Amino acid sequence: MTRPYAQLLERFAEIRDLSAAQSLAGWDQEVMMPPGGADARAHVLAALAGAVHEHSTDRTLVALTEKLWRGRARLPRGQRRQVELARRAVRKARRIPSDLARDLALAESRGLETWRDARKRRDWKRFVPALEHMVQLKRRVAKLGVAAERPAHGSPAPLYDALLDDFEPGLTSLTLDPLLAELRAFTVPLLKKVVSTRVHVDMSPLVGRFAIEPQRAFARDVVDAMGMDPQRSRMDLSTHPFCSGFSPGDVRMTGRFAEHDLRGGLFGVIHEAGHGLYEQGLDPRHARQPVGGAISMAIHESQSRLWENLVGRSRPFWTCWLPRLKRHHKQLRRVSVDAIWRAANAVQPSFIRVEADELTYNLHIILRHEIERDLIEGRQSVKDLPARWNDGMKSLLGLVPRDDAQGVLQDIHWAMGLFGYFPTYSLGNLYAAQFMAAALRDMPKLPARIAKGDMARLREWLREHIHRHDNQVPADVLVKRVTGRPLEVRAFAEHLRAKVGAVYGI
Amino acid sequence: MTRPYAQLLERFAEIRDLSAAQSLAGWDQEVMMPPGGADARAHVLAALAGAVHEHSTDRTLVALTEKLWRGRARLPRGQRRQVELARRAVRKARRIPSDLARDLALAESRGLETWRDARKRRDWKRFVPALEHMVQLKRRVAKLGVAAERPAHGSPAPLYDALLDDFEPGLTSLTLDPLLAELRAFTVPLLKKVVSTRVHVDMSPLVGRFAIEPQRAFARDVVDAMGMDPQRSRMDLSTHPFCSGFSPGDVRMTGRFAEHDLRGGLFGVIHEAGHGLYEQGLDPRHARQPVGGAISMAIHESQSRLWENLVGRSRPFWTCWLPRLKRHHKQLRRVSVDAIWRAANAVQPSFIRVEADELTYNLHIILRHEIERDLIEGRQSVKDLPARWNDGMKSLLGLVPRDDAQGVLQDIHWAMGLFGYFPTYSLGNLYAAQFMAAALRDMPKLPARIAKGDMARLREWLREHIHRHDNQVPADVLVKRVTGRPLEVRAFAEHLRAKVGAVYGI
Repeated sequence: MTRPYAQLLERFAEIRDLSAAQSLAGWDQEVMMPPGGADARAHVLAALAGAVHEHSTDRTLVALTEKLWRGRARLPRGQRRQVELARRAVRKARRIPSDLARDLALAESRGLETWRDARKRRDWKRFVPALEHMVQLKRRVAKLGVAAERPAHGSPAPLYDALLDDFEPGLTSLTLDPLLAELRAFTVPLLKKVVSTRVHVDMSPLVGRFAIEPQRAFARDVVDAMGMDPQRSRMDLSTHPFCSGFSPGDVRMTGRFAEHDLRGGLFGVIHEAGHGLYEQGLDPRHARQPVGGAISMAIHESQSRLWENLVGRSRPFWTCWLPRLKRHHKQLRRVSVDAIWRAANAVQPSFIRVEADELTYNLHIILRHEIERDLIEGRQSVKDLPARWNDGMKSLLGLVPRDDAQGVLQDIHWAMGLFGYFPTYSLGNLYAAQFMAAALRDMPKLPARIAKGDMARLREWLREHIHRHDNQVPADVLVKRVTGRPLEVRAFAEHLRAKVGAVYGI
Repeated sequence: MTRPYAQLLERFAEIRDLSAAQSLAGWDQEVMMPPGGADARAHVLAALAGAVHEHSTDRTLVALTEKLWRGRARLPRGQRRQVELARRAVRKARRIPSDLARDLALAESRGLETWRDARKRRDWKRFVPALEHMVQLKRRVAKLGVAAERPAHGSPAPLYDALLDDFEPGLTSLTLDPLLAELRAFTVPLLKKVVSTRVHVDMSPLVGRFAIEPQRAFARDVVDAMGMDPQRSRMDLSTHPFCSGFSPGDVRMTGRFAEHDLRGGLFGVIHEAGHGLYEQGLDPRHARQPVGGAISMAIHESQSRLWENLVGRSRPFWTCWLPRLKRHHKQLRRVSVDAIWRAANAVQPSFIRVEADELTYNLHIILRHEIERDLIEGRQSVKDLPARWNDGMKSLLGLVPRDDAQGVLQDIHWAMGLFGYFPTYSLGNLYAAQFMAAALRDMPKLPARIAKGDMARLREWLREHIHRHDNQVPADVLVKRVTGRPLEVRAFAEHLRAKVGAVYGI
């Protein structure tokens, strides 16, 4: 290890440590903080963002990354990737003046608060100024990004691409748009077919009245069986379930349970545990290095979706777990595996993204993707968002929200400045199906194992093929290495056509 | 407000925000973090300490404080205090090179871990290298402090004073030593007298077998009645009860409950809530300013001790609360106010400081103070601490610990580098008694009110006379303003002589 390379790692580690403090402050804000702490916390988050930004733009670090980058031909491959990722982070940070970095952090905390309040009151107007301010800031960020990466020849990239890149490094609209178009082209006719069958799936195995405590205990059992290490994780409650990994040794997941519906609690927890297993499976030796961390949000989401939808909503899963669930909820004693499996896979256009079924889910994403792209490109005003939203819902899902809390105010993302994040959810669905297809080719007996309660085999496969490689290769390399193909809609379409076909007899 | 003064406040606010992130990371480490997070957390705390140090030694800030200090004659009094405190903080930080600041933060986290492990195994030797390292670092800090403040004439201050000053600004051994000597001179003969009465206080009202949940519920009720605002606080469990105020709007307390003894849980929670009320009562407009915060650790401790000992162990308190406690614990149904009050005030030499009664408590402190002073002055080796400890226990309390877990390994402080902290506990006892005597002069009916369950009056008196002034005046000014006298042993001695006299008939 050369001296400049060692120095780079040391300086980068400190940035990671400060970022971990940010994650902690964010987690605590959602999960533990009393309401009176909100104002001070906004300042703390802004100060941490400022400190991360200062360290990321430090002149010595900049000089180190550029020097190492120039000599990259002589570096071993592993070190080259480290330098590439560090340089990428430094260059991204340098584009943002420190006042903008701090404004963004403050706008996030305050946007969040305003959004919460507006949603509770179902009052869109209350949220407009905060969102307008946020869009303005993110457009500034995007413009700086596009200017920095402007090609010598040809036209500059869309502003939106600069934001997309924050969540999905290297992904551009050129790759994303055709994938989403194909996904839409697959989904819309299949949804029409489902609706036209007029088949009514009995939802009573999952919707009714279920005590909360047994729900939590059951979810905890499932998560244990998935292989979450309790010495290296926590599971708490929060309004919006999420997962935050401070290090492979400290992964925090949250869940939310409702008495009237088993789905949100159970599938939510399985989803977050999917994220959590990824975080726990990252190589701890790299934890504070540029390669230590997830490849991208879509790869992260692939892990949560795989467990939630391809395991949790599968027949083998319920073969094993229904008898255990019955011990907790006596009213399920006559329910069959087939019945609960059908209920878990019912397709039903609905208003709320996080409650959507596997098929309609991506339509919710397509709606948000189109809207946020237009917001960032300056083609859509914030003021008129509710009309745009409701039109989109009508045309994609055939529904018009009752109010904005059920519509445009439902998601936390824009309030926090997360523009370009939504598409990663759909890409995560695609990756998940493609990874699962590969796992099934490698392990044809996997469904039988899961039916017997053995989820360890799948977890180890994921750890071996995905988790332990952290960010050592980009997503497009990983997916080809693991599945033999670039990212496609195919595996997802096959999986869903088969399942929906079976449930609805089409 | 002049421009340099406004700039000073702005820069200082950021330091406060980063310090709040440190407090949060420390709180989480004790209360929420899974064991696997320890290593990464040590790095996070070190990085935050580094960031605080960087910001505190920033050249622009240094120039601002010195410039404003030179022109202090022209500043309004309030601004002068702000500048004085900011300059004090900056000068303290500048003495410490940044590598030392980081080493200290790492040594604290690691010291803590090693100490925990050593204590659990009752293995002093395991802790020796970590403590030796810590003593070395703190001696370096102390030397830098003494060198910086060396008077033009006369001999330099003892090294220990430089550390004392971190917790009790302005306090030196010249003031502290006579106070502790007087306290010892008062305590030792009174303790002898108590022991010689051979009176046996019946402990069964507080020691026996008490379900945990009702203990927690009762403690919560008491804290509510004290006036803790639940919208601005949390109460959790931890191995070592503590209180951490991130801002007046976000105060975190912890407690610990044991089935065999009501005292630790209840009095511990009242103690922490005393700290918590102080934090909640600080002026929120000053939260991020130099004057925003407690005056000193002893003033902080006066608030916890006042509630714990002068309220919680008083007859009026039990007059009100015993009937409510009986609802939770049926076995107490025949216990009288007098009996539980006696049990709460029994004097009994014992091994563990945090379980000590009001009288013997200060002997535990005197022991620690003498030892830590000698460690810092280089007159005591770490290796020989157990022998020194056990000799001291024998001579002060007539007891020899069974093992080091019951002896020299019992406290967390030295592991975390908190040398000079212990004396503030005894000073807190003195301040508490002196403040309470003043409160009783102002409100002669206070005991009757407390007996009726009204603790609001006392809380408001404390808020009015102490809390809301945050750090606008130093401790010696405050105590004179509130009580008309400098800090003395007198009020404490009178309080305890009367109470112990009543319990033991002497």
